[in-house]
Amino acid sequence: MTGTTGSIDAALLDRLMTDVSRFGTTGDGGVDRQAGSTAHGEARDWFRSELEARGYEVRIDAIGNLFGLLNFAGGNAPLVMTGSHLDSQPAGGRFDGAYGVVAALAALESLRAAVAAGAPAPGCNFCIVDWMNEEGARFQPSLLGSGVYAGELNLEYALSRVDGDGHSVRDELERTGYLGTDPAPRANVYVEFHIEGDDALEKAGLTIGPFARYWGAVKYRVVMKGERAHTGPTAMPSRRDAGLGAAHVIVGLREMSNSRDGALYTSVGRLVVEPNSPNMIPDRATMFIELRAPDPTMLEDAERELKALLESSAAAARVECEVLSVDRRPAGAFDPHLVRLAEQEAAVRGLGTMQLDTIGGHDAVPVSRTCPAVVVTVPSVGGVIHHPDEFSRPGDLEAGANVLLGMLAALGAAGGDVAAAVGAGQGGAR
Amino acid sequence: MTGTTGSIDAALLDRLMTDVSRFGTTGDGGVDRQAGSTAHGEARDWFRSELEARGYEVRIDAIGNLFGLLNFAGGNAPLVMTGSHLDSQPAGGRFDGAYGVVAALAALESLRAAVAAGAPAPGCNFCIVDWMNEEGARFQPSLLGSGVYAGELNLEYALSRVDGDGHSVRDELERTGYLGTDPAPRANVYVEFHIEGDDALEKAGLTIGPFARYWGAVKYRVVMKGERAHTGPTAMPSRRDAGLGAAHVIVGLREMSNSRDGALYTSVGRLVVEPNSPNMIPDRATMFIELRAPDPTMLEDAERELKALLESSAAAARVECEVLSVDRRPAGAFDPHLVRLAEQEAAVRGLGTMQLDTIGGHDAVPVSRTCPAVVVTVPSVGGVIHHPDEFSRPGDLEAGANVLLGMLAALGAAGGDVAAAVGAGQGGAR
Repeated sequence: MTGTTGSIDAALLDRLMTDVSRFGTTGDGGVDRQAGSTAHGEARDWFRSELEARGYEVRIDAIGNLFGLLNFAGGNAPLVMTGSHLDSQPAGGRFDGAYGVVAALAALESLRAAVAAGAPAPGCNFCIVDWMNEEGARFQPSLLGSGVYAGELNLEYALSRVDGDGHSVRDELERTGYLGTDPAPRANVYVEFHIEGDDALEKAGLTIGPFARYWGAVKYRVVMKGERAHTGPTAMPSRRDAGLGAAHVIVGLREMSNSRDGALYTSVGRLVVEPNSPNMIPDRATMFIELRAPDPTMLEDAERELKALLESSAAAARVECEVLSVDRRPAGAFDPHLVRLAEQEAAVRGLGTMQLDTIGGHDAVPVSRTCPAVVVTVPSVGGVIHHPDEFSRPGDLEAGANVLLGMLAALGAAGGDVAAAVGAGQGGAR
Repeated sequence: MTGTTGSIDAALLDRLMTDVSRFGTTGDGGVDRQAGSTAHGEARDWFRSELEARGYEVRIDAIGNLFGLLNFAGGNAPLVMTGSHLDSQPAGGRFDGAYGVVAALAALESLRAAVAAGAPAPGCNFCIVDWMNEEGARFQPSLLGSGVYAGELNLEYALSRVDGDGHSVRDELERTGYLGTDPAPRANVYVEFHIEGDDALEKAGLTIGPFARYWGAVKYRVVMKGERAHTGPTAMPSRRDAGLGAAHVIVGLREMSNSRDGALYTSVGRLVVEPNSPNMIPDRATMFIELRAPDPTMLEDAERELKALLESSAAAARVECEVLSVDRRPAGAFDPHLVRLAEQEAAVRGLGTMQLDTIGGHDAVPVSRTCPAVVVTVPSVGGVIHHPDEFSRPGDLEAGANVLLGMLAALGAAGGDVAAAVGAGQGGAR
């Protein structure tokens, strides 16, 4: 199909990227478009008007996900969904999320134009999605809209989350006009384009990086409980120093990673020591521990090792250790056919590819547990993300949107069948 | 002299202890009599009236130290000073400090009565002191009055210290009537009685514990400076984790103590991690490090080792280490003649003794750098101090006051010469 749908409209993509970057601009190349904010609502209003002006059927569901449906094949045909999110970090970049949303529109517009010009009609329907609160900067947890969509988060729970000022998701969706009542369209395939957010593609001189796997994470909130005492007269053997217990954990966690050649990621980002007085032995040290790994078995092993480390560290400091909470996000793989399809459509266009892992979360992770899904990335200059300096070159954005177009065309030719699309796309594209 | 001045008036000592415990009582056996507070001022007014009623010459110096002079031997004779402090911790005990002040009055009253009854007049004069702000709970630093007296603290600096509410030492002294203008009497000998504040005497079944040494302390405020980054995508080898650097220091400090069989005391009481977000690698970790030891050489060695530890810990975490401040309090010994004199006067009265070290500060530490000085202690039940449960048995308080009386009598017989007093006391007492 490359002959007729081979390229997106680069001018349209550029205009959409420029337009969306206005909303919440921080004047330094970045945006502050946190979920449910006025700037976020205005960006969504703009995108909604772009959809409506082109005849897409707009739906807003109960957690504020925004959908734009494009019907080619009738009500019962499979649905191929593509998109990302328009919310941002507080001092975020203008590409993270927004690129996947506007690339979806650019790709589908080219697909539609090709069909209007005589290309065979796709055997499936399409839908663009703008997920609510991917970032989780203002409202936790992140991946809120896609989590509710995938049935992993309870709707009422999600709506009742509040920000630091006590505003709830429900109130802010209502205020900005995105507390919807429409049923969410159910996708049979989900393809998300995104900036890489790291520098693997740049370093390798490649353009297209499908994520083959998403890493799992295990998060422990732990408190070491010792005994408050003066640092002066208290004899060393009788001390029960909660800070020392925490220090053993922090050092041991790094050793856990080193013993796996860094394949296991470990961290203690937050550590609160009490009473935190220069001359008092701490009686409490609360830690936020993360383990991350691409391999579920490695993560399970690491969690066992962490439990032993907590015990031995507490014993070394003569303190008690209590696990306050555990949050497990399983590791997994994106659909291998879709990874292959991305590689194939990139190859057709002469674009170099490499398979990558994603360590951070993406909306495609919860969605992948409901249907075949993938995230495909384009290079981030310097690997920068979540910062006003975040930048992806227009040529790479265009190349990515062309690969998305090829993937959508192939899926359309295969009637939404991902296995068949690999062949269909390849055949159709040549 | 034991024949005539052998015992203090136990009823007087008991009444003085009971009276002083009223000021700032917290109703649970403890007192809140922080320096410069109304309760502290009322306790000092009471003690001053006790001095004046007995004909002592009261002086208040420029930093609010309260003195009561008893002239036996004329203006140019040596001066033997004894006392402690009437200020307390916020939820402190009623014995810490107050005991040494009232024991001084009870001992000198018995000495004076003996002279009035025909005993030989001492060859020196005496002075009771109530030092301003020993505790340092409300105004830092501690040992404020004795530090100014000893010339280790600048007067204007000391007066300008403020509490958490912005009240200055100067204002609170003025408000309570203790911003004096009298010259401080200069002591030739200083003897302070105090509760032990630990349980060495109790465990050993002994009554009198002269402090032979005071420990030194080296306090470092240090910041580890790394790089802020997400705990998700940042590869382990490229992390610069300030929290990890701090953890290596905390673990290494304990090893420094262990390698000296616990004779070196080490601690990190305060640790502030920034930004302290669960999914951010810390870029700053600020630590308050203490080293304490009785032996100046050990402390010097330990400080060298600490510097190496800071470097190796920073290198292990790929971070920078900056020392923000260093505070050194030298270790030292109290006057060995005075220690011997305490042992001798205890032995005469059949009281068991052991030499102890003090790790915390006492007013006698700065004073000891201006004249021979010692702290002599009586047992603390359970070793409790700085707590309403702090308790010393009336019999032990009386025994201590009797030893003080013996020491003052011996010093009087020797005209304030500490070396001569050892023989004089022993001879005179039998």
